[in-house]
Formats: sequence, C-alpha cells, structure tokens
Amino acid sequence: MADGAPDEFRLIAELFAPLSVRCPGAHGLTDDAAFLPAQPGTDTVVTVDTMVAGVHFLPDDPPELIARKLIGVNLSDLAAKGAVPQTVFLAAAFPREVSSSWLTAFAAGLKCDLDRWEVALAGGDTVATPGPLTLTLTALGRVEAGRGLLRSGARPGHGIWVSGSIGDGALGLKAIRRELAGLDTSDLAELADRYRLPRPRVLLGPRLIGLAAAAMDISDGLLQDLAHICRASGVGAEIEAELVPLSPAAALALAIDQSLLASILTGGDDYELLFTAAPEAVASIQMLSEELSLSLRRIGRITGAAGDGVVVLGGDGQVISLAAGGWRHFAGAEEKGDTVWSG
Amino acid sequence: MADGAPDEFRLIAELFAPLSVRCPGAHGLTDDAAFLPAQPGTDTVVTVDTMVAGVHFLPDDPPELIARKLIGVNLSDLAAKGAVPQTVFLAAAFPREVSSSWLTAFAAGLKCDLDRWEVALAGGDTVATPGPLTLTLTALGRVEAGRGLLRSGARPGHGIWVSGSIGDGALGLKAIRRELAGLDTSDLAELADRYRLPRPRVLLGPRLIGLAAAAMDISDGLLQDLAHICRASGVGAEIEAELVPLSPAAALALAIDQSLLASILTGGDDYELLFTAAPEAVASIQMLSEELSLSLRRIGRITGAAGDGVVVLGGDGQVISLAAGGWRHFAGAEEKGDTVWSG
Repeated sequence: MADGAPDEFRLIAELFAPLSVRCPGAHGLTDDAAFLPAQPGTDTVVTVDTMVAGVHFLPDDPPELIARKLIGVNLSDLAAKGAVPQTVFLAAAFPREVSSSWLTAFAAGLKCDLDRWEVALAGGDTVATPGPLTLTLTALGRVEAGRGLLRSGARPGHGIWVSGSIGDGALGLKAIRRELAGLDTSDLAELADRYRLPRPRVLLGPRLIGLAAAAMDISDGLLQDLAHICRASGVGAEIEAELVPLSPAAALALAIDQSLLASILTGGDDYELLFTAAPEAVASIQMLSEELSLSLRRIGRITGAAGDGVVVLGGDGQVISLAAGGWRHFAGAEEKGDTVWSG
Repeated sequence: MADGAPDEFRLIAELFAPLSVRCPGAHGLTDDAAFLPAQPGTDTVVTVDTMVAGVHFLPDDPPELIARKLIGVNLSDLAAKGAVPQTVFLAAAFPREVSSSWLTAFAAGLKCDLDRWEVALAGGDTVATPGPLTLTLTALGRVEAGRGLLRSGARPGHGIWVSGSIGDGALGLKAIRRELAGLDTSDLAELADRYRLPRPRVLLGPRLIGLAAAAMDISDGLLQDLAHICRASGVGAEIEAELVPLSPAAALALAIDQSLLASILTGGDDYELLFTAAPEAVASIQMLSEELSLSLRRIGRITGAAGDGVVVLGGDGQVISLAAGGWRHFAGAEEKGDTVWSG
C-alpha cells in the first residue's frame, strides 16, 4: 500500500476525520497531536490494547465487528476503573492488500460505537505493514480525582460479583470452530456473536464508584482475573461454580458437556466487570442492577489468607479441580500470550 | 512466544515496571489503566506513532536504538506542539523469536531516554505476533492551556525557521545502504547515526511558545512538512536552498553529488522543528539559539498566495525543479506509505 495505493491513506483520513468532531482539540485530525483541556478535580484514566489478526480476532471477521471489538475491549478497561470514556487514539498497521470497502466498513464500525458512547477519535497513526493487520487503541476517560477503582481494594469478607453472563466469549470461539455439539443454530450464533463483539459495561463502571472496593474487567478468564485481584489485594477468594451466571445457550452447552466448565471459567473474552464489595453494599448493588437492567450476581467471597489463590467450590461444597477439563493451573499463571499492564 | 515462552512476557513486566516509577498513578504497571491527575490551566497533548520492522527501522538495528527512535519520534511531535513530555504508553507486538537479550537491550534503550527527559512509562500492552515487530507509542505531554503550537498559525511575511541540520536522516539511510560515494568512514557513521537516532528538540519546543506562530516537526521531509503548514494556514512558502542548514557530512555529500539536494529537502527522518515566526521575533529566536546551543536558522518566508505551495529558490533566485533528482512532486503529496493524523 506504501507506494502502490496512497489513495487508501487519503481514504482513511477522509473516513476518520468525521469521527473527531466531538473533540475540538483534535483539529479534525489535521495536526500532529490532540489538545485535551484539563478538567480540574478529575483523573485522566489511560488504557491501551493491541489486537493482531489471527491472534485476537479472525482475519475474515467482518471489519465492522473488528472495529467494534477494538473499541469494546478498551472501553471495558475504562469501565472497570469507573471511568467515563472521552477520547480514543487509533494506531493501525494495515496490510497492503486492504481494500477500500474493507476500510469503509471498518470506519463504520468505529463510528457506530463512538457515537453510541459519545467518544471522539482524537488522533492516531496509519502505517503499512508486510505482516498481519495490527490495531492499537489508546483510550482516555475521566474519573473523579482519587476515586478510580483498582485491583487492590479487595478485603476479607467482601462479596465477589460479576456483571452479565460468563463463558459466552470462550464458548463462542468454540462455536465458530464447530467444537460445540448439540446446540441449535440460533444458540451457536448467539455465542459466536458474544465472542466477536464485547459488550463493554460503560454505564455500569462509573456507577460502581462508592459500591465496589476492587474491580477489573474479565478478559483473560474469570479465574485468572480474580487471581489478579487476589494478588494485588493480598487476599484469597472462593467462588461457587453454581452461582456463576450463564446465558441460556451456555447453560445448555454445559448441560450437554460438563467438561466445558473449565472453558467457561477460564476461557476469557467475557468483558464483563468483576468486582468485590462489602456486605453493606448488597442492597445498593441490587437496586443498581434493576436500574440498569443488567444482571449483577454474587458468585463467592474474598477469604483472608493471601497466597491461597482462587478456590472453586461445587454444589456439594467440595473443591473442584479443573485440571481434567484440559486447563492446567490458574493461580498466577498467564495462559495467553499477552501481557497487559494497562488495559 | 504465546504458549512457548511465557517467561518472555514475565521478563517484559520485570523490565518495564521499573520505568513507571515517576508516575504513581501507573501503579507499577500492575493495574488495568493509569490514573493521571488533572493539572488545571494546562492542556494534555497526545500523540501516537507506530513503527514496523522493515518499514520504519531496519530489523537488525540495535534494540537500544529502536527503543530510542520510538521515543524520539514521539517526543519530537510533542516538542513541535510546545509540550513538555510526561508519560508514554507502549504497545508492542513481538515476534515469537524475540530473545531475552534483545528485550533487555530494548528496555535499556527505553530507560535511557525516559530518564533523560524525566518521562514515565505509565502503561501499555504486549502481545505476540506472527508478523514483524510492531511498536506503537502513545505520548502525553503538557502545555499551558490554549497556547500549544499548531500548523495553522503561519501568516504572510513570517520567516520560516528550522532547528539543527536538515537531510542527515535521509543521507544516513543512504549511507547504511552504501549508496553514498566519496565520504570517509566517520562521516558515513555520523549520518547513519542520525538516521537511527532522532534528536527530539524537547527543550526547544516549549521555549517556542510566544515566539513561533506555527510549528511541526520534520518527519516526512522538509518540503512536504512545510506544505502541511501551508495547507493548514492557507498560505504559500518560499525557501532558499542555500539557507537550509547542513551538517558538515551532508554538505560534503552534496558537494560531491548535487542531485542529493532532493533527498536532503524531501527525504525525511530529520526530527528537527520547523516553525514560522513574525519578523519581530528574530532577536529573541537568536538569543534562544545561543542559550540552547542549538542552531536555529531562517530558510525562507511565508508568502501570501494560498495554493502556491512551496517554492525552492536557488542561489541565482531561480526556482529549482527537483524532479530531475528522482523526486516527483511535493505540493500536497504523501510520498511515504504513512498517514499521521496525530503524531
């Protein structure tokens, strides 16, 4: 694309500039940088995520969905910190063979979610690559100064909560790969859609300030991410498998094949919020759940002993070993080839 | 690296976490996002640059220099806007075969320039890629509210100024490719070093506020970048080739081969600052040049007519056509396969 098709880059500028209108300091993406006025009394919250074709999404996924996933995973991180999203910056390394129609659809996907959440594309960079499509989004949000949610706030006796349903993303990838038996077409499609399109809990996150003590979003997998909170907080955790909320499709898949429990609890790509809260907050959390029409479920409790890691209990109160499900170990392990230190 | 060598990712976390100490809100790179307190009366200036191995640097360049180039090109953008750099966020897609020693050297390069400019690595993301090493840096700086330098401030009668020397980066790439004849080893090494390692004008940029009317850094090439300023400002520009400051090595190369003028004026990778200033500012600019021990040279003037683009005059006052030098057209063209809308 470098020498052969500069028109593609002009097209990108044309497609992307309209996405900057909410941010006057972006100067229509015509200058070298964006200028964002300080908002006294707030912290700017910054997160970065990179997605590589063939690693984080399927190369033939619809471009609208790739764009929306890129925005979704970043807004999910901001939500987990209690921040309201404001601007994003897109760095895209495009293979030379990218087509105008692909780019147009990609920009439409960006516009869809930026409009929905009233976020501006405030800048970025576009380069050509001989490798796979590689997309990096930096997202900036705002939270009241000093009140952002951290991983480190969990204390013994706190309840452990999750939004929405768990495991749909991991089962969705299996559905796409035709590894799920016994589900009908609409269940398979629903799960696949959850894999392709995260639902960032943008409205929930800021409302958790004052209710949640520790929070993060679930991207690596429920158990791994809960282990991150335990490590950061110096506590242990105990969850009850039967309390983990499942979508109807995931519940059906699990009823057919019990070994899918490991995928559900550790597969990742959930982009739900995981948080801990003191017992006093229960009534307020339930009211918030009703107000937002979003399931918020308590799935376990924070225990006192640091170093115990995360324990999963079955319906009989016995500890479940997930090793048989093909999953090796979760306390402290990185199962994916990603390290995310911010985002 | 994804499944085969998770140790590499742990190593990265170990190598990178110490680079975050200047930013308490980075929480040692252990949380999902960084929290940056608002500084009332300032604008946050944000820029993003992506570099791909084989496109923006040579794959076998020393890893320290790749890291320093990545930081340099971003800090150059902030300097061009008059901003003082504060934090950077690194998104790195590493090929699986990256070695521990490479990563250690890369982190040392980051540390070198972050320490020098008192900037914190405040977050990022690390992923594995089947493609080439792809590095994206988002850099945040501060400038007094509303006083940042834009491309759009050039007015007829302004002088056109550049810092340092022009063309060393482009000739440096030729030196590395053994395309330069007649220079001795030390001249070739000096030019190559200028290609591999930008000198961002971090101290100059903020001092230009109040003196410069329009500014940007020279990355695409002097003439292309001056054309950007002309377009943004609705003016034309006229520069005198003999006024363009050259390093001794570049001057010698040009004396040997006059056709190199096109490379010098359009080759890019200069990372000097290009700015316009009213005639009243001349004395102050000259004093600033002495104070910083950095050459600041007037190379031409902004003319009135928009749409004239950039005209280059020779010593005889005649317009120079650079087409014979292998360079096609500069008014408004993107000669590289990059579009930079912010950075």
